[in-house]
Amino acid sequence: MSDIYFTPGPTALYFTAEEHIKNAIRNGVVSTSHRGQQFKDIYKACADNLKELMNIPDNYHVLITSSANEAWERIIQNCVRSDSYHISNGPFAARFEKVASQLQKRTHDLKLADGGIPSLEQIDVPEKAEIVTICLNESGTGAAFPLALINQIREKYPEKLIAIDGVSAVPVTPVDFTKIDTLYFSVQKAFGLPAGLGIWIANERCLSKAVELANEGLMIGSYHQLPEMVEKAMEYQTTETPNILGIYTLAKVAEDMLTKGVTAIRREIDYKAAILNIAVEEHPQLSHFIENPAYRSKTVSVIKTSFENSKLINHLKEKHIQIGTGYGKYKPEHIRIANFPTHSKEQMEMLVDMISAFKV
Amino acid sequence: MSDIYFTPGPTALYFTAEEHIKNAIRNGVVSTSHRGQQFKDIYKACADNLKELMNIPDNYHVLITSSANEAWERIIQNCVRSDSYHISNGPFAARFEKVASQLQKRTHDLKLADGGIPSLEQIDVPEKAEIVTICLNESGTGAAFPLALINQIREKYPEKLIAIDGVSAVPVTPVDFTKIDTLYFSVQKAFGLPAGLGIWIANERCLSKAVELANEGLMIGSYHQLPEMVEKAMEYQTTETPNILGIYTLAKVAEDMLTKGVTAIRREIDYKAAILNIAVEEHPQLSHFIENPAYRSKTVSVIKTSFENSKLINHLKEKHIQIGTGYGKYKPEHIRIANFPTHSKEQMEMLVDMISAFKV
Repeated sequence: MSDIYFTPGPTALYFTAEEHIKNAIRNGVVSTSHRGQQFKDIYKACADNLKELMNIPDNYHVLITSSANEAWERIIQNCVRSDSYHISNGPFAARFEKVASQLQKRTHDLKLADGGIPSLEQIDVPEKAEIVTICLNESGTGAAFPLALINQIREKYPEKLIAIDGVSAVPVTPVDFTKIDTLYFSVQKAFGLPAGLGIWIANERCLSKAVELANEGLMIGSYHQLPEMVEKAMEYQTTETPNILGIYTLAKVAEDMLTKGVTAIRREIDYKAAILNIAVEEHPQLSHFIENPAYRSKTVSVIKTSFENSKLINHLKEKHIQIGTGYGKYKPEHIRIANFPTHSKEQMEMLVDMISAFKV
Repeated sequence: MSDIYFTPGPTALYFTAEEHIKNAIRNGVVSTSHRGQQFKDIYKACADNLKELMNIPDNYHVLITSSANEAWERIIQNCVRSDSYHISNGPFAARFEKVASQLQKRTHDLKLADGGIPSLEQIDVPEKAEIVTICLNESGTGAAFPLALINQIREKYPEKLIAIDGVSAVPVTPVDFTKIDTLYFSVQKAFGLPAGLGIWIANERCLSKAVELANEGLMIGSYHQLPEMVEKAMEYQTTETPNILGIYTLAKVAEDMLTKGVTAIRREIDYKAAILNIAVEEHPQLSHFIENPAYRSKTVSVIKTSFENSKLINHLKEKHIQIGTGYGKYKPEHIRIANFPTHSKEQMEMLVDMISAFKV
């Protein structure tokens, strides 16, 4: 019996992914040239399906990176001349600031407690800052950044670029792309694919900014400069040989999700999150790390254990179920449970029953 | 019937790769955390097998990138303060210079005709240049840079770092790592794996240089700074979630190559290159782009056609055999044929027979 992965990522493959990978090998997708028509068709299908699934406006570009980490770097290189502003409410949010700082930008950091959500008043972006970065779903803490607050930031600072870390949130969280400028994600979370591919979505304002910086003689990277990436992407081409197998599989899984319907997917996520949340609340030795339900992620639950977390983790492992430890400094005291589109209601019910029955 | 790919990359999968990919899915390799022991074991197996296969000394680090393109960028960022020297004898060699230039280094370029191999006297590295970059096997032109000349450059310039583009050459070309400082490759060429993974091998001199630059306050990148990559790699960890499936498959294919024996692999390459070369020489309408056999790549043959190349390409395609067009400006007038470890003697004999029988 193979294990069921509820780990926050890498995680269980989307249930159709294995078949798509096998087909890709059979159809020569793994051997085809990234300069040929077969690849162009794959990239187009991937971009079109993601646009439909995530309601991405036509004038946003769907670009290929190797990871979300790379997207951090490319966004800073291409969209920031000197100053950036970061809402740092957890380890992943904070890493965007770190990347900007390593790339020698002047960073302005709204440092919050782990899992904290700021009020609009707390968000005070200096005039010099060109971008505001936000982590939509903190896989480290289980905090979900409110979509309404993103919209308010947009109204308060219409001139600033807004960059969203969509990792582990999309396509579940219904982002309004007209309120943001760029969003990126890696595929080994909610899309349930093998790691090694990132998607970077960027609008014309990002592109103009990159062109502006390049015209000023600033360094905007080498093989993955935004203007060249966009130029190639217009023809469904890339500047380097990309992870073609990953792009193909993402195109197919996005298609499967469209067939199922994003509403059905979100309804299932809601149901699974609800039963898990109730189990945590009713369990005498478990509690939510994010106390306010409005700020609690539906896709990554971070749960405090009043006992050594390995007891529950190992108990489940014996039953061939894998859940995550805490992240970073919380490694021994939290458990993390993913609730992604690939996890069926039945699987989550089984997990919830096991957790409810477990006492130390 | 699925096609046989003799394209220079992406190309045919190594004949055992499909089985390894299926096993990876079965064994949870695609779902495992990159922070866990299973991943560490995979990375260690990959590094150990590559070290044995390619005779890489113990004090060289085997690092994970997303592509050879990324390695260009990381080498320039981490190993060059101000000046770099590039032997540009073809499109891929020239792109290393372009990356350095885009990263705003002062580049010194030995610009040669496509496919040209310089004499030692021609190679005149300015004192300020910190690195010499060489493309071992130009997939664009079919030129192989002589290993003896690399050794001579090392003797002439012992203080300079030497960086080798090993794409489409390794593990076939027996590089002497003690004569170079860093080498990188992508896996979709001679290793016969799906694209989306690069391997960057670097020694302590590269590491010291990166530390030196960082200490001087220079920018050496963000999530893929060499010092941090090495620190993590010492524990078989990476700084970001990598292409775990790719690393696993590379570990397994390298193991299969070790089982077969690198001598046997190289002997087969020699045989296949020999029969292809003879066929070209005996064909009235074909000729080698690289006239001097000493400088001719064994793994990527670039052949001039005195007719429109699509005639032969399409003729072979009808027989389910795929070969490459010319690269860049040579697209309509060259054909390119890969001779990688996955291509069997029988497959190459069949291809050679078809080419010999083809007349316009």
